[in-house]
Amino acid sequence: MSSRLRFVVAYDGAPFTGWQSQKNGDTVQDHLERAFGIVSKQQVRVHGAGRTDAGVHALAQTAHADVPERTLTAEQWTTALNASLPPAIRVLRSRYVSDAFHARFSAKGKTYRYRIWNDRILPPLENGRAWHVPAALDLSAMHREAAAFVGRHDFASFAANRGKPGEETVRTIDSFRLARSGKCVALEFSGDGFLYKMVRLMTGALVRCGRGQAREGEIARRLQSPSGTPPTARLVAPAGGLFLVRVRY
Amino acid sequence: MSSRLRFVVAYDGAPFTGWQSQKNGDTVQDHLERAFGIVSKQQVRVHGAGRTDAGVHALAQTAHADVPERTLTAEQWTTALNASLPPAIRVLRSRYVSDAFHARFSAKGKTYRYRIWNDRILPPLENGRAWHVPAALDLSAMHREAAAFVGRHDFASFAANRGKPGEETVRTIDSFRLARSGKCVALEFSGDGFLYKMVRLMTGALVRCGRGQAREGEIARRLQSPSGTPPTARLVAPAGGLFLVRVRY
Repeated sequence: MSSRLRFVVAYDGAPFTGWQSQKNGDTVQDHLERAFGIVSKQQVRVHGAGRTDAGVHALAQTAHADVPERTLTAEQWTTALNASLPPAIRVLRSRYVSDAFHARFSAKGKTYRYRIWNDRILPPLENGRAWHVPAALDLSAMHREAAAFVGRHDFASFAANRGKPGEETVRTIDSFRLARSGKCVALEFSGDGFLYKMVRLMTGALVRCGRGQAREGEIARRLQSPSGTPPTARLVAPAGGLFLVRVRY
Repeated sequence: MSSRLRFVVAYDGAPFTGWQSQKNGDTVQDHLERAFGIVSKQQVRVHGAGRTDAGVHALAQTAHADVPERTLTAEQWTTALNASLPPAIRVLRSRYVSDAFHARFSAKGKTYRYRIWNDRILPPLENGRAWHVPAALDLSAMHREAAAFVGRHDFASFAANRGKPGEETVRTIDSFRLARSGKCVALEFSGDGFLYKMVRLMTGALVRCGRGQAREGEIARRLQSPSGTPPTARLVAPAGGLFLVRVRY
């Protein structure tokens, strides 16, 4: 018999080759499964809400795992896992849930934050945690153009390879926020789901708008004709500026 | 003929083995001297205001170097050096100064910040940038005890090995500040000079006070009888929480 443990995990994406398990064993999922193995002496599979890429950080990823029948309290799991994990991965909290819960399939939405450092020089401690854009950015133009993202659209033009073959590319963005704090411009996207590299492609498009490299209304046009965007107009923001902020259930 | 270039440099201490040049060549000074060599095709020696240890960060270290007679403007030096430096080291600004200026000997004072993360779990992105102290801290006790540091004292009890043989261990601390922001407790020390590991030993002593592990007045007593402190009472805060904030001239 096993019990389903739901837990929230934060990580620095820099040292790992992304979330999803790989042969090299150096992904966040691999480290978590190894920690579960150390604690439970059994092979345990970890399911995450989202498969973040190499370099992408998480403030609060949600995951679940089926662990041996309640030998440990959820609180004890948190402590035991952290004792076996590298400091760049931390389980923030855990609780037992019913088997009906699935970290990925039960998720109703996610929020991602993208950080841009808009100054001549990128401070060393921001290296790998923000996209360095030294050129001036017209934030009101970015804000205006971003409004087109909100709502239900076909985001194929904002998906790597325009989405996997046969993949449904319609998604709903519930909200977008842009906040400047000193030299840091933070973009926050909340939606029911995100295609592969979608936040980084949306961010790239907005930076083009902010730098005056796109015609007015470009984002709305790309959403209206998802297959009409020339590849040259597609700019992917680097992984290090992206943070998975929370998963909604 | 050469000209003296004074520059301000920031770095993430994590990837380097400290400031001071070493055989392995992986110190901040080594990287800077290599960058000067690439730009000027000459061997250039870099002098820093302070020799930070491995893992210690700098928001604004000051340094100088004698570069070949003004072939580049100071502004061009900043750009050229950054193009040859790893992103974890950035020259923030440069200017030509008279030969009377010496980054180390002209310095009148420095400010260091020490960051403590006072919560059950250390967020992954704070790893190597704060000291994780999960136990409750009595901040008013820390504040009260820290008052003893301010002024002119013999800091031998707060120096690694009680100072180098024959070294003068009297220093003046001009100000101390303690600020809590969420789970982060920042201690800021300004003074005319700091002995080896002095900030980390002062921080260790304050954390002992905050945890109720020291008798009231312990810091004042250690300052009054510098050689009377048993080694067991000396706690060195880890390097990663320490930041050189600025150098005063």
